[in-house]
Amino acid sequence: MPSELARQVLDGSPRALARVITWVENDDPRAVECLEILYPHMGRAHILGLTGSPGAGKSSLTDQLTHHFRNAGKTVGIVAVDPSSPFTGGALLGDRIRMSRHAGDPGVFIRSMATRGFLGGLAQTTDNVVKAMDAAGKDVVIVETVGVGQDEIDIMRIADTICLILAPGYGDIIQSMKAGVMEIADIYVINKSDHAGADQLYTEVNSRILQDSQIRKRDREPPPVVKTVATEKRGIDDLMAAIESCRCQLKESGALLEKRRERIRQQTFQMIQFALFQLLEKELAQNGRLDRLVDAIIEKKENPYQAMREIVDEFIKVPAG
Amino acid sequence: MPSELARQVLDGSPRALARVITWVENDDPRAVECLEILYPHMGRAHILGLTGSPGAGKSSLTDQLTHHFRNAGKTVGIVAVDPSSPFTGGALLGDRIRMSRHAGDPGVFIRSMATRGFLGGLAQTTDNVVKAMDAAGKDVVIVETVGVGQDEIDIMRIADTICLILAPGYGDIIQSMKAGVMEIADIYVINKSDHAGADQLYTEVNSRILQDSQIRKRDREPPPVVKTVATEKRGIDDLMAAIESCRCQLKESGALLEKRRERIRQQTFQMIQFALFQLLEKELAQNGRLDRLVDAIIEKKENPYQAMREIVDEFIKVPAG
Repeated sequence: MPSELARQVLDGSPRALARVITWVENDDPRAVECLEILYPHMGRAHILGLTGSPGAGKSSLTDQLTHHFRNAGKTVGIVAVDPSSPFTGGALLGDRIRMSRHAGDPGVFIRSMATRGFLGGLAQTTDNVVKAMDAAGKDVVIVETVGVGQDEIDIMRIADTICLILAPGYGDIIQSMKAGVMEIADIYVINKSDHAGADQLYTEVNSRILQDSQIRKRDREPPPVVKTVATEKRGIDDLMAAIESCRCQLKESGALLEKRRERIRQQTFQMIQFALFQLLEKELAQNGRLDRLVDAIIEKKENPYQAMREIVDEFIKVPAG
Repeated sequence: MPSELARQVLDGSPRALARVITWVENDDPRAVECLEILYPHMGRAHILGLTGSPGAGKSSLTDQLTHHFRNAGKTVGIVAVDPSSPFTGGALLGDRIRMSRHAGDPGVFIRSMATRGFLGGLAQTTDNVVKAMDAAGKDVVIVETVGVGQDEIDIMRIADTICLILAPGYGDIIQSMKAGVMEIADIYVINKSDHAGADQLYTEVNSRILQDSQIRKRDREPPPVVKTVATEKRGIDDLMAAIESCRCQLKESGALLEKRRERIRQQTFQMIQFALFQLLEKELAQNGRLDRLVDAIIEKKENPYQAMREIVDEFIKVPAG
């Protein structure tokens, strides 16, 4: 069944792709079976990250970029992630995109996500969703995420090229600086550049780039700052050119390979952790052992540190050497 | 050495406490040895969480509350956490507090943290810092954290009583709603209540509380909304009364025990995970095996999923039964 579904994904079935993604989101063991079959077909898509505060215009830009990529004959996958709302599900972002003009285009596959996995899980889940789209043959995968914070940064690290979307009047730059997104962006976009304060923001971003040692030490050309008005389709050609130039530079300089190596390293490690977590959960949480342990700890009959050591000893084989 | 330090912590040495906290922050194995010795002395402090956007006035409120607790003869520990800045270290918050009038008072112990651990580590690290202060005999431990996001929520779950600090003009309520902090707060504080927009914010918060099913379903009195002007010491008595009433309710209803049980459950699980993670990291990362594996995966000689299974099989004993 997973192998059949994987075959359908490779054949271009959007239904099969949607199903695999649902398995990924639900931590269904069949997801790994599928991804394993899809694995040889991964690594071809250009992964583009779009981040910035709510209201900066990410959805409009995603819409415009998708339009341009489609006109250039490229297929597009879109993953809209909103990790900031554990309670309400935060599907607003995805809904907005889903209602866009690309919803009926078979060359565009759109998915919104709000689930929060275990173990820094959202970035890992997003990564697997991106990989599934990549294997399904999408030429470009756009990962869009709102807000700032560590979750967002982890998600952005999935991307080959990161665009930070700023707009005048959102206090974005201060927030983004704090969250460390400024430092990892490859392209800065001043959207709503026809609004009051846009020129000041442009100047501010440029001077930040020149000052910031984290940005400067990356040892290449300073990242471009592009002005756009997404709702009026202004500046999109410039942004496309910046993205394309960034992609070429990454590939030719070997930085793309280096980025991917680091990502594979982290992901492999996380995958192992996650597998351990699942085993542990099955053994401890599901059979009531953890509950009994907690009772004993509360009654101070057990010391949690001692209990931890005993359980670890019980689970881990002492590695030889 | 850890046992000697633990004894000094119990004797009230602030230097020893600072040292143990540094071990905790650095994931030094001696931290666990210390915490294990301190363990029987934990569980006495009232843990108070203060959260809200930058600028809402958390530091001023922490300062005022500390003053009141001290006047009531209680000792206070303060942990200021700023997880939002992985690059700059984000020690701003802590610096502001450290410079406060309580810095010279031996009944007040202040620590700022910005380190980000592994495995959802910041909340766990913060929790261990709080536990060390608890064991050191602090009657109240205040955990203060800026911003919104999942990290913040995880940190706030450490607290027995959570105060969400809002102020007019910061767009806080929307942000907080999104982040799910609204739902977990026990007390809502409208600080800067002499500013324009404060009454509107007060009304807005009250109506949110009445509407929100997540808040209502907690099956107790609606949480209080307290107006303060921290810089002018207004409303602090009301806030103290709300905190005290909340603490009593928690204890008498059995909710405190339930909260702590859930916390111990999560922490024990995380501790086991973390210990496994450390063992694994040592084995994989330090002996170069992970690097070789990554090379093989990049050259598509290895499939990461297969590699993961092999490593898990190699490390984990198949538990009997």
